[in-house]
Amino acid sequence: MRGINKRSSLLRESPTRRIDRIREIISREGRDIYLLSTGQPSIPPPKEVRDYLSKLLSEESMKLYSYTQSQGIKDLREAIVNDLKELGGLDLDPDKNVVVTAGGQEAMFTTLSAILEPGDEVILIDPTYFGYRPLIEYFGGIIKYVPADMENGFQPDLESIKNVISSKTKAFILVSPDNPTGRVIDNNIAKGLAELAKDHDFWLVIDEAYKTLIYEGEHSWIWHFAPEHVIGIDTFSKDPGIPGWRLGYIYGPEEFIKPAKLISEEIVYCPPSIAQMMVTYYLKSGIRKIFIPKVLSAYKSKRDALIDALQTYLPEVKFAKPQGSMFLFADFSAYLNKLNMNTEIFTEKLLMEVGVASVPGSYFGSTKNFIRLSFVSETQERIHTAINLIRKFINNYLTHNNY
Amino acid sequence: MRGINKRSSLLRESPTRRIDRIREIISREGRDIYLLSTGQPSIPPPKEVRDYLSKLLSEESMKLYSYTQSQGIKDLREAIVNDLKELGGLDLDPDKNVVVTAGGQEAMFTTLSAILEPGDEVILIDPTYFGYRPLIEYFGGIIKYVPADMENGFQPDLESIKNVISSKTKAFILVSPDNPTGRVIDNNIAKGLAELAKDHDFWLVIDEAYKTLIYEGEHSWIWHFAPEHVIGIDTFSKDPGIPGWRLGYIYGPEEFIKPAKLISEEIVYCPPSIAQMMVTYYLKSGIRKIFIPKVLSAYKSKRDALIDALQTYLPEVKFAKPQGSMFLFADFSAYLNKLNMNTEIFTEKLLMEVGVASVPGSYFGSTKNFIRLSFVSETQERIHTAINLIRKFINNYLTHNNY
Repeated sequence: MRGINKRSSLLRESPTRRIDRIREIISREGRDIYLLSTGQPSIPPPKEVRDYLSKLLSEESMKLYSYTQSQGIKDLREAIVNDLKELGGLDLDPDKNVVVTAGGQEAMFTTLSAILEPGDEVILIDPTYFGYRPLIEYFGGIIKYVPADMENGFQPDLESIKNVISSKTKAFILVSPDNPTGRVIDNNIAKGLAELAKDHDFWLVIDEAYKTLIYEGEHSWIWHFAPEHVIGIDTFSKDPGIPGWRLGYIYGPEEFIKPAKLISEEIVYCPPSIAQMMVTYYLKSGIRKIFIPKVLSAYKSKRDALIDALQTYLPEVKFAKPQGSMFLFADFSAYLNKLNMNTEIFTEKLLMEVGVASVPGSYFGSTKNFIRLSFVSETQERIHTAINLIRKFINNYLTHNNY
Repeated sequence: MRGINKRSSLLRESPTRRIDRIREIISREGRDIYLLSTGQPSIPPPKEVRDYLSKLLSEESMKLYSYTQSQGIKDLREAIVNDLKELGGLDLDPDKNVVVTAGGQEAMFTTLSAILEPGDEVILIDPTYFGYRPLIEYFGGIIKYVPADMENGFQPDLESIKNVISSKTKAFILVSPDNPTGRVIDNNIAKGLAELAKDHDFWLVIDEAYKTLIYEGEHSWIWHFAPEHVIGIDTFSKDPGIPGWRLGYIYGPEEFIKPAKLISEEIVYCPPSIAQMMVTYYLKSGIRKIFIPKVLSAYKSKRDALIDALQTYLPEVKFAKPQGSMFLFADFSAYLNKLNMNTEIFTEKLLMEVGVASVPGSYFGSTKNFIRLSFVSETQERIHTAINLIRKFINNYLTHNNY
């Protein structure tokens, strides 16, 4: 009999998609929006790289349009392996340890599709990126949360992790630098985590979407501590900044990459060829070495502008300074308690009434009263204006509505 | 415990990928290859469309690079709905009935992921495109085959279909125009199939990859006969010819599109933005109306060249003249019996010894002694040369090796 299967009924629309839709409605009304909600870069890829693609587009050949190997173009896999060698000292084989994917999302879908059996347990940090939960549940996995507190800079605690490990633990998913907190995982905690993964034989799935966007500290390459247990999930969405083009990759031990390669082939046949050619050129030409420092410097100034604006206009907001990624996770408790509002209502009102888009912290876990603020999309000046608008909204609300 | 789950062990590399690899080895040796194996177009997308993308690439904006709605850009969904209206008189809603996907493969993965429960039965025609079987098995489905004979122009028989329908039948997958036979489904058989789908309440999953590549006859739009039971799987790989860019779509009733949209979002987050922008322009500008007749005329001449070459050099080969798609499914029994070879050995020898790449018919089902020959990639002259090389190989083998 026709119909839809059970597990499909578990799926819900991504919460930021709802915000995107409200934004679209407001935009259509011609109102200005301050974009503190998005995880997208604001700087397009380097001009040299775009010019290179234009040249390829002018050629009367199928080269740019053809299917590629499902594992990804060999040149690109070699460039990725060299890149990981240079950035982190990783020693990988482009044939045995890397699969190019249609973005980080497909990389994670493929990974969980390959490793999870129904009933398997997956450990997540609370708070963490909201994209993991629906995928784990879709594959029948059970989530165990470990808290990470602002007071500890959102570093998870090894003892708490030990407490949730069981014989059913199949994986631990960690994103570092973090979305939503900007935390860069401490190298000692990373090492401890790797020891636990080896002792209890579970996968460490490390989402490295923001690995080149670090303002203080260094990326911890957990691979060194447990090369047979680490699955790296990487994307080109943030660096060089082609989120819509869908390109990412997975690296890991051969025993995992072999089935992952086949699953990815079943899912998308091959990753998008034009994105592969762009990134091959981007990595091999050395253009990235000039481009990324500029991006980093721009984003760091924006982060500092956000911190300054918060301290100026909303001094009761608490936060841990983000060391990487694009986000600051702000504790609005002081204000929300006065307003008697939860974050979902508050962020929706901010968007509707003063045109400031942000993401409620509740999307990322059990924390109350937090809001994720992205600092990469707007200019420093507009970041200041946006935070000032939030202050005015709060003051206005407290003066007129709340008694 | 770490490890890979059971269903992942079911997957095998796509058989044509193996051919692609042998081809690559031969190419690296500098030897010429006659490409009669590929399902890829040989004519790049129209220049106007490529120029349009170059212009977008020159802009200092994130527009071309940003995530899109996971269901696909609204403009594109509207263009698709208009296109289906114009081509086939379909009456669809761009919000309720269409999901844009990262290619036809993801469209099929999403579809089967949404509808199949383990143990569900799916009916396939024998022979049919080899991509369906592994997906069905991956989702725990059971395949029931119905034969389609060359003598009947590879049209399936409604009585045979009736015989395999059971209470567990969840779907029937049909590709028309067909890969590998080039058969365009007869309108009366399509109608009968639709009646069966309604009577027994199963999905008709119609792969329309080649719907605009028809040389004789017309595409049968089964949607008209059973709009609530038809799921259309479409791709832009063949028209305008961007297989590597991964863009396709699904259309169907709202009850199916709703979960399909969410699954597709979990798989790839959104379809590739640059491909979406290209195809939106391609469809809305009207360029396609000038481009496709040219492509059709070129491919038809190539098809006729292949038929002519077969009749000239290999008169004992039997086939049904392909009315659409890119392929001719040729019965080599007369020669293979003399050579005492199966198609897999024969096609491999053709590739290794005379540089002619083709696909063994055994990949598509239980037929013995068939070979799939693609006619779109090579010039008419080279098609003649390739078929002549096959003849020479056979003669040479019979003279020197086979006694």
